[in-house]
Amino acid sequence: MASNNSIRLFDLQLETGCTISPFVWRIKYALKHKGFDIDIVPNGFTGIREITNGFSDRVPVIVDDGHWVRDSWDIAVYLDETYPDRPMLYEGPSQRILTRFVDNWMWATIIRPWFYCYIKDYHDLSMPRDRAYVRESRERLFLGGRTIEETQAGREERLPTVPEPLRAMLADSPWLGGPAPNYADYCILSAFLWCGSVARVPPLFDDEPLRDWIERGLDLYDGLGRHPGMHDLFGLPKPELAA
Amino acid sequence: MASNNSIRLFDLQLETGCTISPFVWRIKYALKHKGFDIDIVPNGFTGIREITNGFSDRVPVIVDDGHWVRDSWDIAVYLDETYPDRPMLYEGPSQRILTRFVDNWMWATIIRPWFYCYIKDYHDLSMPRDRAYVRESRERLFLGGRTIEETQAGREERLPTVPEPLRAMLADSPWLGGPAPNYADYCILSAFLWCGSVARVPPLFDDEPLRDWIERGLDLYDGLGRHPGMHDLFGLPKPELAA
Repeated sequence: MASNNSIRLFDLQLETGCTISPFVWRIKYALKHKGFDIDIVPNGFTGIREITNGFSDRVPVIVDDGHWVRDSWDIAVYLDETYPDRPMLYEGPSQRILTRFVDNWMWATIIRPWFYCYIKDYHDLSMPRDRAYVRESRERLFLGGRTIEETQAGREERLPTVPEPLRAMLADSPWLGGPAPNYADYCILSAFLWCGSVARVPPLFDDEPLRDWIERGLDLYDGLGRHPGMHDLFGLPKPELAA
Repeated sequence: MASNNSIRLFDLQLETGCTISPFVWRIKYALKHKGFDIDIVPNGFTGIREITNGFSDRVPVIVDDGHWVRDSWDIAVYLDETYPDRPMLYEGPSQRILTRFVDNWMWATIIRPWFYCYIKDYHDLSMPRDRAYVRESRERLFLGGRTIEETQAGREERLPTVPEPLRAMLADSPWLGGPAPNYADYCILSAFLWCGSVARVPPLFDDEPLRDWIERGLDLYDGLGRHPGMHDLFGLPKPELAA
């Protein structure tokens, strides 16, 4: 049992102190959903292995009374299995499988296009000590040799990109969890939290149909998603109609 | 309570007597999952309003002891709400929302491409009395003025089309329901049941990674998916490798 009802979480932060990683964001929500206080270990993109004493190269990592767990999917399962008497993140195994499918779909259809629109903001907002790593690794792994500046250029033509199927899923229910949010909400919400942490130009129109769900998500757990480092998600100017 | 443990189901059949509609297929599985016998009312594409006494233009329709229900999503909810003491189709509201999302994705990425590959078989295998309707309605609604013959031509170049995300979803679990099948399995399986009812050329290679899950699905409930009118789903010849 977590001492003092608190679980340690290794974070991935920008210079503002705002979490950027969608995988860390969902675990922050998951820990609050289970009723825990979060003992944050602040950190950026580099030095993860060092601060986790060699346990992991990636975050999230949690430490629960000396028990270390890595990988957001494994952490969510660990929390439900270890604390079944607290609100469940998953209603059952089928939701776990389907949530992972929707999450994969979200990475391909939401995060990936936005990544190419916000990669320079992402770089510029990272901690100064992380910027050389962010530039080198992103240009090599994801940008096929283009620079982050070349990749982000012209993004106004490529926004917004919220796909209709996601809107349809929330048309008849307040949450993906049904009457209350669960891990499916936190996973999909993490795309918007990630984007808000880096978006120096808003990605969404004011009248985005998902706005109500997104705003309610940011408000959860005393405004967990309302970090001062977050940018506006709404306010993208509407294109002029041809006369 | 269903008399004699039996529920009436209005079917949508081809000339072979095999069900074609993916929405009827999933309700056949749902009724068996709930432990009911099925009292089938055979019918084709036309005359649905007449045989349902004006209740519906579409199937599936069920009649449970005089209580009529239409629309496969509503029927599944009705069965779980009315018979909660029998095996549940859904483990909870979140799975219901996520299943519908995956189903919408499946229609766009699996059924639609296959529809254009099998539309002439679909027409030719329908009941003789339905063929004029099938041709006229499909050409007008879905084929943009092309004939069914023009649409199907060249299909060998367009097969197969099982998308990787569906395979990934089943990589670590025997069923989408987890340890046992549930309504998520029946929804996605219905794409393959539909295809098998019309595919005079198999859509899938013998070594399709989903084959094990599909075969186990066809075997469920004493081989519910093994109707004599079903065609082989596997056996698509591999393209010759360039020498």
